[in-house]
Amino acid sequence: MRLQVAAILCTAAVQAQYFQRLGGCPDLGCIFPVDQANFLPGQAFDIRLEIHSPTNGSEAREGTPDENFTFTVAKKGAEPVPVTEFFGVQEPQLEKWNFTWYEDLFAKDLKEPSFVQVASKAYRNLKLTEPGEYEAVLTYYNGTTTNATWVVRDISAERKAKNVIMFIGDGMTTNMITAARLIAHRSVNGHYLTKMAMDQFPILGHQMTHSMDSFITDSANSATSLYAGHKTTVNALGVYVDSSSDPFDDPKFETVAEIFRRKNPNGGVGIVSTAFIADATPAALTAHTAARSEYGHVIDSYIHGLQNFTEWGNWTGPDVLFGGGAENFLPKGSYQGQNYYDIFSNAGYSVYFNNSALSSAANDTKALGIFSIGNLAKWLDRNVYPENLQNQTNYPDGSGSTADDQPGLKDMTLKAIDILAERSGDEGFFLMSEAASIDKMMHLLDYDRALGELLELDDTIRATKEKLEALGLLNDTLIIVTADHGHGFDVAGSVDTEYLESQKTDRAKRDAVGVYANSGLSQYTVKNQKSPVYSDGVHFPAQWDPRYALFAGVMANPDHRENYKVSKNGPRLPASELVEDSGDYYADYKDAVTGFVINGTLPVSADQGVHSLTDVPVFAQGPCQELFGGVYNSIDIFYNVAECLGLASY
Amino acid sequence: MRLQVAAILCTAAVQAQYFQRLGGCPDLGCIFPVDQANFLPGQAFDIRLEIHSPTNGSEAREGTPDENFTFTVAKKGAEPVPVTEFFGVQEPQLEKWNFTWYEDLFAKDLKEPSFVQVASKAYRNLKLTEPGEYEAVLTYYNGTTTNATWVVRDISAERKAKNVIMFIGDGMTTNMITAARLIAHRSVNGHYLTKMAMDQFPILGHQMTHSMDSFITDSANSATSLYAGHKTTVNALGVYVDSSSDPFDDPKFETVAEIFRRKNPNGGVGIVSTAFIADATPAALTAHTAARSEYGHVIDSYIHGLQNFTEWGNWTGPDVLFGGGAENFLPKGSYQGQNYYDIFSNAGYSVYFNNSALSSAANDTKALGIFSIGNLAKWLDRNVYPENLQNQTNYPDGSGSTADDQPGLKDMTLKAIDILAERSGDEGFFLMSEAASIDKMMHLLDYDRALGELLELDDTIRATKEKLEALGLLNDTLIIVTADHGHGFDVAGSVDTEYLESQKTDRAKRDAVGVYANSGLSQYTVKNQKSPVYSDGVHFPAQWDPRYALFAGVMANPDHRENYKVSKNGPRLPASELVEDSGDYYADYKDAVTGFVINGTLPVSADQGVHSLTDVPVFAQGPCQELFGGVYNSIDIFYNVAECLGLASY
Repeated sequence: MRLQVAAILCTAAVQAQYFQRLGGCPDLGCIFPVDQANFLPGQAFDIRLEIHSPTNGSEAREGTPDENFTFTVAKKGAEPVPVTEFFGVQEPQLEKWNFTWYEDLFAKDLKEPSFVQVASKAYRNLKLTEPGEYEAVLTYYNGTTTNATWVVRDISAERKAKNVIMFIGDGMTTNMITAARLIAHRSVNGHYLTKMAMDQFPILGHQMTHSMDSFITDSANSATSLYAGHKTTVNALGVYVDSSSDPFDDPKFETVAEIFRRKNPNGGVGIVSTAFIADATPAALTAHTAARSEYGHVIDSYIHGLQNFTEWGNWTGPDVLFGGGAENFLPKGSYQGQNYYDIFSNAGYSVYFNNSALSSAANDTKALGIFSIGNLAKWLDRNVYPENLQNQTNYPDGSGSTADDQPGLKDMTLKAIDILAERSGDEGFFLMSEAASIDKMMHLLDYDRALGELLELDDTIRATKEKLEALGLLNDTLIIVTADHGHGFDVAGSVDTEYLESQKTDRAKRDAVGVYANSGLSQYTVKNQKSPVYSDGVHFPAQWDPRYALFAGVMANPDHRENYKVSKNGPRLPASELVEDSGDYYADYKDAVTGFVINGTLPVSADQGVHSLTDVPVFAQGPCQELFGGVYNSIDIFYNVAECLGLASY
Repeated sequence: MRLQVAAILCTAAVQAQYFQRLGGCPDLGCIFPVDQANFLPGQAFDIRLEIHSPTNGSEAREGTPDENFTFTVAKKGAEPVPVTEFFGVQEPQLEKWNFTWYEDLFAKDLKEPSFVQVASKAYRNLKLTEPGEYEAVLTYYNGTTTNATWVVRDISAERKAKNVIMFIGDGMTTNMITAARLIAHRSVNGHYLTKMAMDQFPILGHQMTHSMDSFITDSANSATSLYAGHKTTVNALGVYVDSSSDPFDDPKFETVAEIFRRKNPNGGVGIVSTAFIADATPAALTAHTAARSEYGHVIDSYIHGLQNFTEWGNWTGPDVLFGGGAENFLPKGSYQGQNYYDIFSNAGYSVYFNNSALSSAANDTKALGIFSIGNLAKWLDRNVYPENLQNQTNYPDGSGSTADDQPGLKDMTLKAIDILAERSGDEGFFLMSEAASIDKMMHLLDYDRALGELLELDDTIRATKEKLEALGLLNDTLIIVTADHGHGFDVAGSVDTEYLESQKTDRAKRDAVGVYANSGLSQYTVKNQKSPVYSDGVHFPAQWDPRYALFAGVMANPDHRENYKVSKNGPRLPASELVEDSGDYYADYKDAVTGFVINGTLPVSADQGVHSLTDVPVFAQGPCQELFGGVYNSIDIFYNVAECLGLASY
């Protein structure tokens, strides 16, 4: 029996979860969309029903899952109606599969998974157009019921903004903004002489980032909330996660990009990121999969929608797609080994590989810009340590040469706006622009690079407002700046890096930390001989390597060393394995030779930091800005944007 | 010479600073109020001028400080006028003193302070009533000048709110609010079924908490900013810090409580805190000293204003003063050994020592309520582990019995509102209510107790709105909820405490941490057999000791151990000395016997956590609420409250 279970485990490994049989499914009957789900009127979605029969573990029962389950839907107070009748669809075929999960860490250590048999049906491409509460009831096992309440929001279909630009600082928290301000903006006696662009937005809100079934989210899950108004599960893009092993059969729901294009066939859509462009935050605009790692699917969904996976939707490709990640366009790493540069080109896209080409791109043509293999270079490396861009093999054409002429977020975003403004005309545009490496550098405990990315985002926001003003679009455009989740980062003082280096023991080195009055003033804004010169309104540190550096950190670490100095030779690598592939990480001596050891709090299998719980800020200006004040759920961002763009259908 | 310097150092020890000769004084001439200082029209303030002559160190010069310095003030663009003429005051006597400071940690290790001779003058009790910019020029050393620009804000004197209630969650950040919501409010599939009272405020802002001369603040400094609109130095209450050793001669400025009472002689003032009441956050409303540790001064200033220290001001005592800290009222620890219960009683106050007496207190009489020696008991101990209140010697009459009938923040605040509403009549009231032990428990890494205090604050806010509604005052009352600074706290997942305890090694114990999907859902909201029952609208955890506990932490620690379980026998003591009075702290084994060691990042002399940089949230509702949206400096809270209460004088 043990062997058999283990074999099944392997096939279903992608679904294997700890602590929960299946998120959103507290009973043996499961309804997706889940209880409490919200919908935009007219938003397309799928229904997935599952009946579970656990054969072992704490929920074990006799027999197979009920295949004769029934499902009704009704407006609250009305007579329940079979789902096929309610939506006017055919009864689908019954599906059956099995999956396993671990009830807790003890079961995992013992390799004793719980085994579950499943009977399931899925109903595709449905819509609810009448606002109000709906009651969905799944009946199985001789009268056992699982109920879900669905809420279709009562949102005006009247459009209030021509354009929406959504900036996402991936992993960006209020704490990071505070630190970025400190190192880049001069103050006199506690009075800042300049402010961040974000600081100047009239409306501030907080959004809650937690997942549907766990309180810490990842970027796929959270982007799905922001773009589609449904909380879901870690790693999921545009779907609720069912228990099947197929990453493409999960119940989908339509995103803001898809709805906007459906309602505005000539409206512009732009997707910009400093990550590899198949990464979660851009991907969630068009991809629908339980597994964010299905990069081939993501790239294919950008240009073809879902036609290679299901008949669902009618997406036709963005006007602008800028980022890194050439590896998923080249045959070696793409969906079905195709050359996606050719596919985009054949579909009318101009293709750009470097910043020089980007800067002279035509504004009337659809544009694909892929500027590197992997993630784009960081602001700090492009601008302060450019030698780190040399001698790479990351040129996006796959030729093995160096991508040393990469654009930054500002270059890509301003060009995107030029193209969207010219192409979209009266129907307006939706642009998502992501500062991805705030998160990526926070993961590596490379706080300097993370703050550099945050300041580049802020500079991009400043320049975007100037651009919109110059194009006459500022008053018609809602600008939102927010994040998808946090990291537990803060600053608690300064470190005399000279003193730290002079001390011999780990305990003595800690005396270099100055707190309260001894934190002193920011020395990052003090010019030194090599200080760069910025244009008016542009704010970055005058130096990145002051003697008194930030005493910064996160509250959940791998083992690492710390000397609090900027990593001049490229991003940090805080932890490494003593034995290759052991999954057992220790502080990497080379990362901070002069520093001291800080033992981790994360499992020793962690080589980097993790996301945190904190609500993240939302800055808004433009039409509908008043919708974004106060404290709310991340999904409300979607409903507010949809209201502003008039995306509801009745 | 070395001996002489050391002797001087001892007398000036309270002023000895590292890294800066004197905050706000980058030149050898110093002007207080400092460059960029803001003023409310008609706000009383002092001027302090200093001329420095360093005799050694990097700034060493020949000779003594210039005693013939001159000082002019002028509206911007107008002819400079000698300060005596400008304000119509007499020339004061010249003062002279010396002080020392350490230029850096190397100098401190070598015991080589820098020595500075000072010549100084102070001009007292001045006012600027005309809005606009002023130029102040100090001339010394044959034409060297130090300039300061002062800004008198152009604020309407028209009153818009009858009452202002300012809630301060000491040390409270957005991250903590997010964690408190998670453990106290139930959610289904990512949708919270209830919200925090704070979440329901219509307006959200962020305020920057940094000091005048360091980027990390303490609660004295930050409370001064919030109450008086001037950024100052760590440990300072209502003054700029000069270089003299006298803690009472520093240049003062008037606070919101003093101005409100001056302009509304029958207006009500209430001061409520869960700290010992001489602590910084309440103290900053009436005390004026460079040293927050001058507790005798603080208590005397509550009842007498500054008459025992200077002729400045005309403060007449609050209507309500509720908190802990009996030790500073009893002769053994009070100013000049007086019994301050008698002094308050003789001035017409009713005095209360426990919650039963408080609950039946008359609403028409001034009230002093001191409910414990030291800080008040924590919500968690009062409500979940009440046995921790027994067998103490902290009864506030000094009798040595147990203070086991202590009020919470809600009890004190609601009674304060009853008294203020009845006594203040048409002139309205100003109430400050502080949840002090969010900060105190965060310092001890006792996150459970800190979040309990935060939830008690939230419950107090909810109940305050109900109380104001019942009294017919809700629409006339501006309610602000904010903090004075942060701690670098966040939550990054959950911990299986059973698994952690079962593992033998520190590294294996860390595998108990679940992140992302494995963080799971909050188990604090799940009832167990012993779950308490709360009234409608009241939200606290249903259990504090779930198997899956918060994976919480701060980014700057002393050495400590962690098992992530609630400390049932009272607040945590994370670090202790192996050798008494060594100042060398190690993880305290008893604090978390089943846990693992986390080595600190703070200096080994630290036995607790420290404050952090992050901007803190501001929630506002009521008249003038629109002033509190967006991102701004902490001092803007004062100017906005002053505008709302019509406190400007022209």
